[in-house]
Amino acid sequence: MEKRARVLIDCEDAKGLVYNISKVFYERDLNIDTNREFVDKEKSKFFMRTVVSGNFDTQELLKALRLVAPKEAHIRVIEPKDKKIVILATKESHALGDILIRHAAGELGASIACVIANHDTLRALVERFDIPFFYIPANDLTREAHEKKIRECIDTYTFDYIVLAKYMRILTPTFVKAYTEKIINIHHSFLPAFIGANPYKQAFDRGVKIIGATAHYVTDDLDEGPIIAQDVIPVNHRFSWKDMQRAGRDGEKIVLSRALDLVLHDRVFINGNKTVIF
Amino acid sequence: MEKRARVLIDCEDAKGLVYNISKVFYERDLNIDTNREFVDKEKSKFFMRTVVSGNFDTQELLKALRLVAPKEAHIRVIEPKDKKIVILATKESHALGDILIRHAAGELGASIACVIANHDTLRALVERFDIPFFYIPANDLTREAHEKKIRECIDTYTFDYIVLAKYMRILTPTFVKAYTEKIINIHHSFLPAFIGANPYKQAFDRGVKIIGATAHYVTDDLDEGPIIAQDVIPVNHRFSWKDMQRAGRDGEKIVLSRALDLVLHDRVFINGNKTVIF
Amino acid sequence: MEKRARVLIDCEDAKGLVYNISKVFYERDLNIDTNREFVDKEKSKFFMRTVVSGNFDTQELLKALRLVAPKEAHIRVIEPKDKKIVILATKESHALGDILIRHAAGELGASIACVIANHDTLRALVERFDIPFFYIPANDLTREAHEKKIRECIDTYTFDYIVLAKYMRILTPTFVKAYTEKIINIHHSFLPAFIGANPYKQAFDRGVKIIGATAHYVTDDLDEGPIIAQDVIPVNHRFSWKDMQRAGRDGEKIVLSRALDLVLHDRVFINGNKTVIF
Amino acid sequence: MEKRARVLIDCEDAKGLVYNISKVFYERDLNIDTNREFVDKEKSKFFMRTVVSGNFDTQELLKALRLVAPKEAHIRVIEPKDKKIVILATKESHALGDILIRHAAGELGASIACVIANHDTLRALVERFDIPFFYIPANDLTREAHEKKIRECIDTYTFDYIVLAKYMRILTPTFVKAYTEKIINIHHSFLPAFIGANPYKQAFDRGVKIIGATAHYVTDDLDEGPIIAQDVIPVNHRFSWKDMQRAGRDGEKIVLSRALDLVLHDRVFINGNKTVIF
Repeated sequence: MEKRARVLIDCEDAKGLVYNISKVFYERDLNIDTNREFVDKEKSKFFMRTVVSGNFDTQELLKALRLVAPKEAHIRVIEPKDKKIVILATKESHALGDILIRHAAGELGASIACVIANHDTLRALVERFDIPFFYIPANDLTREAHEKKIRECIDTYTFDYIVLAKYMRILTPTFVKAYTEKIINIHHSFLPAFIGANPYKQAFDRGVKIIGATAHYVTDDLDEGPIIAQDVIPVNHRFSWKDMQRAGRDGEKIVLSRALDLVLHDRVFINGNKTVIF
Repeated sequence: MEKRARVLIDCEDAKGLVYNISKVFYERDLNIDTNREFVDKEKSKFFMRTVVSGNFDTQELLKALRLVAPKEAHIRVIEPKDKKIVILATKESHALGDILIRHAAGELGASIACVIANHDTLRALVERFDIPFFYIPANDLTREAHEKKIRECIDTYTFDYIVLAKYMRILTPTFVKAYTEKIINIHHSFLPAFIGANPYKQAFDRGVKIIGATAHYVTDDLDEGPIIAQDVIPVNHRFSWKDMQRAGRDGEKIVLSRALDLVLHDRVFINGNKTVIF
Repeated sequence: MEKRARVLIDCEDAKGLVYNISKVFYERDLNIDTNREFVDKEKSKFFMRTVVSGNFDTQELLKALRLVAPKEAHIRVIEPKDKKIVILATKESHALGDILIRHAAGELGASIACVIANHDTLRALVERFDIPFFYIPANDLTREAHEKKIRECIDTYTFDYIVLAKYMRILTPTFVKAYTEKIINIHHSFLPAFIGANPYKQAFDRGVKIIGATAHYVTDDLDEGPIIAQDVIPVNHRFSWKDMQRAGRDGEKIVLSRALDLVLHDRVFINGNKTVIF
Repeated sequence: MEKRARVLIDCEDAKGLVYNISKVFYERDLNIDTNREFVDKEKSKFFMRTVVSGNFDTQELLKALRLVAPKEAHIRVIEPKDKKIVILATKESHALGDILIRHAAGELGASIACVIANHDTLRALVERFDIPFFYIPANDLTREAHEKKIRECIDTYTFDYIVLAKYMRILTPTFVKAYTEKIINIHHSFLPAFIGANPYKQAFDRGVKIIGATAHYVTDDLDEGPIIAQDVIPVNHRFSWKDMQRAGRDGEKIVLSRALDLVLHDRVFINGNKTVIF
């Protein structure tokens, strides 16, 4: 039975990798629909993403690839099917709304298991789309206790990614570790950057001409994980800082959706603190 | 005799300013060719740039405007003529070269008094354009002694602006103060920003997807003065950090030239630590 | 009673216009919150948008302005309140969805009277937001007969603008004329442009690197009316034409929303076949 | 002796191509420094660019690759060395000047054999850089006679590419055919496009908000060859059409230099009327 899979391999670089891997495909008479590689010379790391089609047994293919790749290689054979995501939000609707509309149009490439928020503001919007909404307030709870409640909720679902659609709370290292390489965040940023409270106000005070948005994997360092996508929106002296915020939101929602599209199609490798995107 | 002038006024905001100023123009039967105002509500500051033409005496016009504007108002009546600039550089030719080509094509809107550099690398390039080049090395000199030599050189010229075309030395507060609102710099920057040595290497290590360039007035805080223009160049994981540097240079030269064009046409007001650009 | 209004004036250019208009404000002791003018020298046309606040009677102010402006001047004194829009759509949800989300978040600056579509596809989405949806199919109808039905529907509402959110039918000159300067459209475009069927396929065949989106007022010439906003999205050889279409949609929805924001805040003047945007 | 080469292969797609080609590298114990492939599914065409290093004989490697590739395959093994270009210009200096500055800084990746122009305007600029300049006026000559003179001049050099740096004359099919896939041009363009004389004036009259620039290979259809790079510059209603022209020039020079960088590093495949860029 003809089928299709995305083969993702990342490992130490070694001579003959392309040859040995393509040999595995060749011997099984598989078609290569797309194939991209990248070698990070500095770290001596090899990345390869191949879409193959033909008659194959996924487990057998995986076993054969393991035989030719270095021992520590990270190999995945993924049969395309819609991923599932969980969304965390707070009060702002722009990033969440953009995902909901794409989902409703069948263009997200993922189903949405549920939306969890630490405020009840977005309930009506989410429920309009017949998606479960859970209000888990953080009031009077320690960070750990709050996250425990969230984990109890999301762990009733199977899911591939947690999307922070303007979730305005910092996650503990414990939470981040529990979902390594699975949490995706969006944040605005500026040229130059501003540290501390209300960066839009600071950017306004400095008169920046550009507002940026960055989508990234979440690691322990707040807003410092591997970058997936970035873009900028031009602003000028006639923008109030509220106008800047509004402009920043457009950037955020588009960049988050672009990042999700890449991640959900298995086009992103994490390479230390950066990404390789095919 | 029909002539034309740019009238620039910035002052405390007050009721009737537009009326009182336009009355001055009206009573002198002047044409208003372009007119733009901006009020910074937060700081209660008023900015106005008007290009007028007609028969007028510049000193008389200035006097009349002073009578209707608040006492501390900063008023300029500038008859358009090419400005003069002094350029400071080090070794890199991209920003300097772009200025030289525009100058040779008669498109810079300024003449170049001279180029001063702390290395001799750029002499041949500058002298190809018949522009005086002065090599003032910093070796074995204190920062103050080096700047003293530079000042002795540039002060033999009259000039409107000092353009730092990738001048890679930090200026002392004394130097900056001596040429307040007259020094223009360009620097690259990143989303997010990176502090410390070799930011391109750091940006590469973080895998940024965008490189920015910022042209600004120089104040005591390094790279922190009022921003005139900004732009970004997209990069990706296939860029080495040298490739990123090359991409950043394209951004820098275009942004510096755009900023110079604004400044040389008297379109930029400094408003605290930001700018109003008409 | 303190109130605020946007004063919009466009007319033949004439000496003393700024003086005479600002005198009207001054004599009524009005504050000028923002003020922008532009003179199109080529057409000798004057444009001015002033936000004033204070105690005034709208009709009296209008009368006073008419006395000082040229006879044919087009003068509006608009007290800010949410505008009302009617949306026409077909099957695609991206532009419509973006408007609905902004509306639900209270960020649109307009209420939505209803959505009319020539297919029933978008009913569920629109009704999720409790907005009236009318399905007016075009099957077996002449263009005129179909538009008659649409007009019967929309004319039961009062509204300021008709927004074509990917409405895929050409409007007759009669319809366009009935709503002069009130219809806003979005379309994608390419560098270079492609005429005829399926421009995305043509752009794909030509290997364009950029997809553009243009929001504009609708005039008799299809897609040729005064441009309000434009933006571009980069693409490359790995994009299928369906990917290009998806990229184009992101551009379209952002540009349409940006254009709506400008129009709904009365920031756009139509100047022949172009716009002046303050 | 260790050396390095760029291997470029384009041919009909076939099963096992990656395997068979990588086998050739593997059997010769070559390192793969970078490797990228692309399959155009629609045209069933395969493209591969591999940088290999190691001990190899170029002719032997080429022969081995020919044995495993389809019969009509286009295979090149290119040892990196600076390419040589010939530049054709008219009067405008921006695109030419940018190339000269990069060349002087050692960043062009090519030497410049000579510059030929149909006006004498640019002589001083070119000769400042000690590059041969030939003035070949077109006056009183048929297009064919003029091109004959140009060909006599450039054919005294060996060169890889002819760069049209704002060469304002149309080339005959004969000329284009004589240098197939070797002529690179830059032109501005608009959203939407404007046909006929003075497109900047037309774009101004239409009030475009964006000016684009396109670098492409020259084919018989004027400005219609495979696109290498594109970019845009934002403009607005305050730009005169001369300002637009100036903005367009910035776009043109940056895009031409970016395209040259890609072409000179053998990163561009021509694929019918489009390009594949690695």
